[in-house]
Amino acid sequence: MATEFDTGLPSVRQLQGVIREQSTVEVKLLTGDVLNGMIVWQDAHAICLSVDGATMLMMRAAIAYVKISA
Amino acid sequence: MATEFDTGLPSVRQLQGVIREQSTVEVKLLTGDVLNGMIVWQDAHAICLSVDGATMLMMRAAIAYVKISA
Amino acid sequence: MATEFDTGLPSVRQLQGVIREQSTVEVKLLTGDVLNGMIVWQDAHAICLSVDGATMLMMRAAIAYVKISA
Amino acid sequence: MATEFDTGLPSVRQLQGVIREQSTVEVKLLTGDVLNGMIVWQDAHAICLSVDGATMLMMRAAIAYVKISA
Amino acid sequence: MATEFDTGLPSVRQLQGVIREQSTVEVKLLTGDVLNGMIVWQDAHAICLSVDGATMLMMRAAIAYVKISA
Amino acid sequence: MATEFDTGLPSVRQLQGVIREQSTVEVKLLTGDVLNGMIVWQDAHAICLSVDGATMLMMRAAIAYVKISA
Repeated sequence: MATEFDTGLPSVRQLQGVIREQSTVEVKLLTGDVLNGMIVWQDAHAICLSVDGATMLMMRAAIAYVKISA
Repeated sequence: MATEFDTGLPSVRQLQGVIREQSTVEVKLLTGDVLNGMIVWQDAHAICLSVDGATMLMMRAAIAYVKISA
Repeated sequence: MATEFDTGLPSVRQLQGVIREQSTVEVKLLTGDVLNGMIVWQDAHAICLSVDGATMLMMRAAIAYVKISA
Repeated sequence: MATEFDTGLPSVRQLQGVIREQSTVEVKLLTGDVLNGMIVWQDAHAICLSVDGATMLMMRAAIAYVKISA
Repeated sequence: MATEFDTGLPSVRQLQGVIREQSTVEVKLLTGDVLNGMIVWQDAHAICLSVDGATMLMMRAAIAYVKISA
Repeated sequence: MATEFDTGLPSVRQLQGVIREQSTVEVKLLTGDVLNGMIVWQDAHAICLSVDGATMLMMRAAIAYVKISA
């Protein structure tokens, strides 16, 4: 389980912007689940999503896409 | 199979908090299974969940999300 | 999460060409979703697709194929 | 295909205990298959399960969980 | 995203042979899609397949098998 | 795409034994496909299976299990 996490990558910076703006994103998982919430933090393994008061650690390897509204 | 495991990562620390508090989590796997139980330990490969008296090694690569109740 | 990204690889260069030409691609995910859009950027973790005004970070590990029209 | 295999990890040691005790485990794969058998050995790539006289190399990346009865 | 690509490996050499001979292969993806076409190139991330005039980057991690006719 | 391949691992040696004995194995893929054939070779990325005269490169990451008859 590698723990390198290059915060300079476009994908990481884009999600950091979403965290700062506290905007809502849609996350689709490989299970087919679609979740809407605010990203609280991200690290090498997971994206933490706040969904209706619950804290959800979405495992990166299980994420199909993150949709950011315009 | 890398064995590095950075205990300083937010995702690892959050689960360590759950272990200390002995609170129940919901784990969804890529198979679609949803399991509720207490996390006993975590390492680089697996999260060990105690479910109704059985010990379940949930493989990290197969975990879609871990939901922590508020 | 490795962050090496060899921009000399054929697959990376082909997508860079698609970005420059602003042509539309079809991306199929492991979820079965098929999305059509323009690639905005790519990095080691994701391909950013612009789909009907929304920004979608398509996780590389979840991509089945990228289809480039002739 | 990394071949490091840290035998000190809790998940590895737990399965070594199961091998020593020759107890039966339930293994669920990402295909949805559920297999019951005795673990013969484990290495970085696979867990070898003896199921009704057949030897089955269960690929680690395809394992959802290993359930150990109490 | 590792970019090492050992061209001496049997699997890489076999596909190089297919490219040279311009024979048609069948590729099955984890999505269940089966595609028939000619391999144009391969790199560490993808196998580029020419299918009915379209260029398809088949992501290696999403490929179940490549079938080479006798 | 790592290319290390430790031929001393039990899982690698077991499959080498199967190759020497030219016995038939059953391979199940994450797609649900079950294939019966003889293993011709293995490397870090794939297991080459001869099935009814066709050569099939079964990608390791897509293999659920290899079943070896007693």
